[in-house]
Amino acid sequence: MSAGGNMRIEQPYLLFLGDAPDQLAAKTAQGVKDWRPETCVGQLRFTDCNADLGLSDMSLSEGLEKGAKTLVVGVANRGGVISEAWTEVLVKALDLGFDLASGLHNKLADVPALAAAAERNGRQLFDVRHPTETFSIGDGKKRPGKRLLTVGTDCSCGKMYTSLALEREMRARGIKADFRATGQTGILIAGAGVSIDAVVADFISGASESLSPANDADHWDLVEGQGSLFHASFAGVSLGLLHGSQPDVIVMCHEPTREHMRGLPVYALPEIQPCIETNLAAARLTNPEVVCAGLSVNTSRLDPEAAKACLAELEDKIGLPAVDPMRDGVGRLVDKIA
Amino acid sequence: MSAGGNMRIEQPYLLFLGDAPDQLAAKTAQGVKDWRPETCVGQLRFTDCNADLGLSDMSLSEGLEKGAKTLVVGVANRGGVISEAWTEVLVKALDLGFDLASGLHNKLADVPALAAAAERNGRQLFDVRHPTETFSIGDGKKRPGKRLLTVGTDCSCGKMYTSLALEREMRARGIKADFRATGQTGILIAGAGVSIDAVVADFISGASESLSPANDADHWDLVEGQGSLFHASFAGVSLGLLHGSQPDVIVMCHEPTREHMRGLPVYALPEIQPCIETNLAAARLTNPEVVCAGLSVNTSRLDPEAAKACLAELEDKIGLPAVDPMRDGVGRLVDKIA
Repeated sequence: MSAGGNMRIEQPYLLFLGDAPDQLAAKTAQGVKDWRPETCVGQLRFTDCNADLGLSDMSLSEGLEKGAKTLVVGVANRGGVISEAWTEVLVKALDLGFDLASGLHNKLADVPALAAAAERNGRQLFDVRHPTETFSIGDGKKRPGKRLLTVGTDCSCGKMYTSLALEREMRARGIKADFRATGQTGILIAGAGVSIDAVVADFISGASESLSPANDADHWDLVEGQGSLFHASFAGVSLGLLHGSQPDVIVMCHEPTREHMRGLPVYALPEIQPCIETNLAAARLTNPEVVCAGLSVNTSRLDPEAAKACLAELEDKIGLPAVDPMRDGVGRLVDKIA
Repeated sequence: MSAGGNMRIEQPYLLFLGDAPDQLAAKTAQGVKDWRPETCVGQLRFTDCNADLGLSDMSLSEGLEKGAKTLVVGVANRGGVISEAWTEVLVKALDLGFDLASGLHNKLADVPALAAAAERNGRQLFDVRHPTETFSIGDGKKRPGKRLLTVGTDCSCGKMYTSLALEREMRARGIKADFRATGQTGILIAGAGVSIDAVVADFISGASESLSPANDADHWDLVEGQGSLFHASFAGVSLGLLHGSQPDVIVMCHEPTREHMRGLPVYALPEIQPCIETNLAAARLTNPEVVCAGLSVNTSRLDPEAAKACLAELEDKIGLPAVDPMRDGVGRLVDKIA
């Protein structure tokens, strides 16, 4: 269970929801609570907060008493910036001995009052979107241990969710497995990882290698994929991650109702079979034994009947298990892998 | 002839060779002199310099009199660092009104005396390996104008040289053509460009798009390729550059005597035909009309007979022109393109 990457956030957490205008604004905190409830001692909300994770409400000092080490800014206001309304409580948290962690675009470290309070108290500020580590160039050397990478027909189609669901299912079966995070929410959930799209281009595969280091022969790293080899904006990230992860297994993630590639109205989604083949062909460069275990399909926009028909059709077409992790779990994918 | 990228270095240059221990240490300056002799007013050498570009030796003030705007640090000492022995003359250059440009790993801007002198004189320091621009995410939109990208079976097999040779040949035929630089030597040669492997991963294709912006329908951008889709360390860079460049034409660069991928002893070179097909398949995402014009083969390590046989064999195998630009020029590739 060695840590991937060098960023390591101390747990457990107190989740800061602040003045979240609605539940959606707290979706990062929601992700942490859903996947790592044991790491969340409670939530800290302002009186005008409209989000609720169902955790105990508590003050900073109550959070400390419950053992919290890090206050996680799990909320985004408009523009994804750090609100001035939060500064007082964030400074107080540092003064009381918390570290701070945030997945927002702008940095905690760039807010002078927070930088000063962290310095004064010897505490750490984790801006998880912004890697601070120095990575090596990828060396392509095979590492012991098993690795699975979630890939996709597009961005934002369920790679993090699928990776975490696989971790949960594998652990429930007694298989050694660790989720490896490559995006901000995943890093806050895991308490470690690398925001891979923020790494300097030369080091994409090297950073990906460091994320899933050598491990026991029967240990699985479940690496959170990013982007798609068929996304004109981000395919370079996806390819470097694919090469550095050296997956033994890929799982193809897909959102069947999407009309075009995310953010690119003129680009159609790829067909699934060629998308699988292209990913396998590229992955063979660093792991000739790679296989595809099946499809993870986000059918949340379909009614139950349509979802069932969609999964059956995909399964028939591809000849591999096609599951919606939210509806069916990922047991059939793990059967295939194990 | 609009500029690719935002980094624009004022020409002409005075080439600083300093205390270069041998000719190889001045290879960056040599590249500038070979490809843009008209931009080089002279060379500045210390008494212990063992390199010579065959340019007039001159002092800073003589260089200024000849019209030089930028002093180019075209020399690398051991470790690729900025030598303390250079500081005095570099500061004096800034005081006299030169900008400075360097392709070294460590930055001019990080040498306090140089930063202070630039500030004091309102001059610019160009650390061409370190992009300072803000790029947009790639949007994949087709841009007017024609584009050619040099790709490769491996790193360091002649992509910059081939791109520049194509520019020279096309311009000689009256074709509108501009070399677009993606590496430090290329940027110093062109006076503009983007060090693509130093861009944050999310922006590889966006930076590549900005490098070859919309242009006349009959204008060719000749984009310097980087890495290889088959290089386990750098393929992500190569793919983002391929997608962002949207090439109409690729030229495959190859070094036939190499025993393994550069820096990766356990990786064999790819076969050329599948390498071409993989590049074309990936390039079709953003330009379905892409074709391969032929091969540019670096046969410098073969004797003339062996080189001839190698090119004939490759040409027969691939069914496209195979030239060594150093021996034969790139005329046959331009015939094929035009």
